[in-house]
Amino acid sequence: MHLARVMTEHGPRYGAVDPKERSVRILTDECFPPGPSPQFTGVSVPLDGARLLAPVAPGKVVVIGRNYGSRADAADTLVLHLKPPTAVTGPGEPILLPSGSKDVRYEGELAVVIGSVCRAVDPDQAEAHVFGYTCANDVTAWDIGTEGGQWTKAKGMDTFCPLGPWITTDVDPAAAVITTHVNGELRQHGSTAELTRATAVLVSEVSHLMTLLPGDVLLTGTPGGSASLADGDEVTVAIEGIGALRNPVAGR
Amino acid sequence: MHLARVMTEHGPRYGAVDPKERSVRILTDECFPPGPSPQFTGVSVPLDGARLLAPVAPGKVVVIGRNYGSRADAADTLVLHLKPPTAVTGPGEPILLPSGSKDVRYEGELAVVIGSVCRAVDPDQAEAHVFGYTCANDVTAWDIGTEGGQWTKAKGMDTFCPLGPWITTDVDPAAAVITTHVNGELRQHGSTAELTRATAVLVSEVSHLMTLLPGDVLLTGTPGGSASLADGDEVTVAIEGIGALRNPVAGR
Repeated sequence: MHLARVMTEHGPRYGAVDPKERSVRILTDECFPPGPSPQFTGVSVPLDGARLLAPVAPGKVVVIGRNYGSRADAADTLVLHLKPPTAVTGPGEPILLPSGSKDVRYEGELAVVIGSVCRAVDPDQAEAHVFGYTCANDVTAWDIGTEGGQWTKAKGMDTFCPLGPWITTDVDPAAAVITTHVNGELRQHGSTAELTRATAVLVSEVSHLMTLLPGDVLLTGTPGGSASLADGDEVTVAIEGIGALRNPVAGR
Repeated sequence: MHLARVMTEHGPRYGAVDPKERSVRILTDECFPPGPSPQFTGVSVPLDGARLLAPVAPGKVVVIGRNYGSRADAADTLVLHLKPPTAVTGPGEPILLPSGSKDVRYEGELAVVIGSVCRAVDPDQAEAHVFGYTCANDVTAWDIGTEGGQWTKAKGMDTFCPLGPWITTDVDPAAAVITTHVNGELRQHGSTAELTRATAVLVSEVSHLMTLLPGDVLLTGTPGGSASLADGDEVTVAIEGIGALRNPVAGR
């Protein structure tokens, strides 16, 4: 299933996207995660023109650093940051460039969305706690507060965590092509097969540090090719089997 | 007012603590923050024996580093970390020592609790967005993942953010004595007058980086004297005009 969060005349609702029919079938469930046998309201909205929101409102966003083996600076140890929930934004929403930065970079990433409480689990148990996967852009201001290896300011600003377009429950996270385009031009190209720590290993390791709750999100690192964005750009993170997350870039 | 969150037979409720009468008067409001003219249910519970919870469930916990002028390592720039909401725990709840650490330290701190949405405000507007203040213990495992100046693992573990015993709305945050005792022995002694950045400046600066929401919490830094905790210790952070936050320490 592709689970989207869509704005309807009755407010935000969950819906199942049918990419062929270009429709979103609205669910009765209003909580995350929806039950194992989703019930439908009978209402559908056309996908084209629908206002999709970030597909989940995470309690925490855990950001994994330097996790692509293809990168020269790939890390041996688990590198971990947090983004605040206020950084999350949805498909189509602008990434806002802060006036104090001249180097805000895109970082296309596979995001893991947790489905059930998860504490100190082994890698082979981790997948059972994953609800699904979505696209993320780990937007980072490389020239704000990064002295001394600090990343909280650089990664924590409002709009610096686009998520979407929906959460896909039946994608293979072990070998999906991930790309980032800026204004239609290919800038990042990788495969999740290059992850130094696979998604199940990440969920396991993070769950030994902090309890993961339904809706929590893990960003799994970005391949090489990250670079600066400018006012007026459009950046698209696409993952095979999931979809494409498009965001315009704007000054504040 | 001292606003506490107390477990009742009907679940968690907000209540106003009367320290003289040693009672908690339960409020009708069940959301944070309660309205400007709190209504009472008429029910009171005795303070002694009441199970107090963390007085707020923050969406984010912003941790300010090296902010006491009395410390040799006081920072010129704003040093910022995040703790995840899963780190928050209440008065009387155990601080759990992870098996991988031999150096989990207490850090007694004044915590600012935000009352209204706050984005890019000036210091002289900041106080209007503060609901009140509470005691915090910025528990930190100094030997877990701190290489390269990283603090997310060290500060982000479950139970590493005790808050309480309640939120005090009418305390002067500019000159309050703050102490930390371990097993009754004085270990930290300072005054919030030593804050390099006062609370209003912190709220202002952080609000320029990320939107602050009602219930968000800022920990304002710790004075000198932080040191390791051991299984069986009891640690108490007390702030003049607020109260005392007591937590036992236990192995996992």
